[in-house]
Amino acid sequence: MERQFDEDLAVLKEALMRMATLVEESIALSVQALKERNEEFIQQVLEREGTINDLEVEIEQMALKLIALKQPMAGDLRMIVSAMKMSGELERMGDEAVNIAERAQVLLKVPLLKPLLDIPRMVTLAQNMVRDSVRSYIDQDASLAKNICERDDEVDDLYDQVFRELLTYTIADPTTIPRAMELVLISRHLERIADHATNISEDVIYQVEGRTIKHHFEEKYPPENKS
Amino acid sequence: MERQFDEDLAVLKEALMRMATLVEESIALSVQALKERNEEFIQQVLEREGTINDLEVEIEQMALKLIALKQPMAGDLRMIVSAMKMSGELERMGDEAVNIAERAQVLLKVPLLKPLLDIPRMVTLAQNMVRDSVRSYIDQDASLAKNICERDDEVDDLYDQVFRELLTYTIADPTTIPRAMELVLISRHLERIADHATNISEDVIYQVEGRTIKHHFEEKYPPENKS
Repeated sequence: MERQFDEDLAVLKEALMRMATLVEESIALSVQALKERNEEFIQQVLEREGTINDLEVEIEQMALKLIALKQPMAGDLRMIVSAMKMSGELERMGDEAVNIAERAQVLLKVPLLKPLLDIPRMVTLAQNMVRDSVRSYIDQDASLAKNICERDDEVDDLYDQVFRELLTYTIADPTTIPRAMELVLISRHLERIADHATNISEDVIYQVEGRTIKHHFEEKYPPENKS
Repeated sequence: MERQFDEDLAVLKEALMRMATLVEESIALSVQALKERNEEFIQQVLEREGTINDLEVEIEQMALKLIALKQPMAGDLRMIVSAMKMSGELERMGDEAVNIAERAQVLLKVPLLKPLLDIPRMVTLAQNMVRDSVRSYIDQDASLAKNICERDDEVDDLYDQVFRELLTYTIADPTTIPRAMELVLISRHLERIADHATNISEDVIYQVEGRTIKHHFEEKYPPENKS
């Protein structure tokens, strides 16, 4: 029975990793579409979304079945509940990638306002955060999870930077407003992806160290203490 | 046993409603601080945050205990898992209210850029969405939940409006940029609160009608199809 449970949990973890890989690819493709001005990548993001949505349903059903049939105790139960939460976060990241792809589609019809520099940086950071957040869950690694929470501040800073830089463009030339706005919104979607990865990491910290630490951590590193 | 379970579930629901009320109050107080230029309200938001955080832990522990001891089947199990997800969403809304309060604190030191019109409108919408999302869970009311998802578009539109209006201020006078930016970020926090209420509602739709509907619904009403 115990061994069967471990095997079931391994299947669940494997599905989560597959989901994370698809999300990572979607994020990269959505911005690549814009960077390389290639509409084909947008289609690839939309295709991945269907599979990501299916995986969320699959993971939730596996998890509920595991709880109902195996009646796991404390730690194992918490681990399965976290898997469900995590699949929800990953699914929302997939949605954000679709939002980016949709904005990219609009921007492909007009000349690019400026070369993309900070946005690709945000993509790399977000991708790594997604991968590591799932990794921190699989390994129950609270210190990796804390490191992800810190990286969230870098993403927030890049968002502010993109915002301010594009503002200067619009001040110099108000006709750039629509294009600048799309780019600001793309970086906002990336920032939200990082937020979802942070949510996963906070849950891992809770699993490993207990909730009190989570809130203390938030107090020590408030999500937005700039300005 | 069955009756005991219903009683335990009622306690869980009651805690969720208490949490929702505190969140609603925090949202209102955070913007009231800015509108009435009264720092006392900020303190009241911070006080509520502690209680909201405690309630999340309490609800999660109640839920895990209920699953472990009562081993509920299908529908009941799903209901309890949703309660946990919901308390997570409510806790994040509480964090967003704190973010607003922190930005209000910065803005209280300088003259207000313009009278607040759309932001209080966003507050009213967000508050009602929070209340109704928890209500839709308690009553398992999918049509109310769908209505909340639609209202999310109104909040998104108001955010875009605030963004564009403040942009015109900064174009006319770049020295207004820091103040305009804070106001944009406040409306972004409000928009996120509405997103969390939408997440709760989508989960209710799933509970009542099955996941497939949820994704269809999202396709019919994509979160951001403007631009």
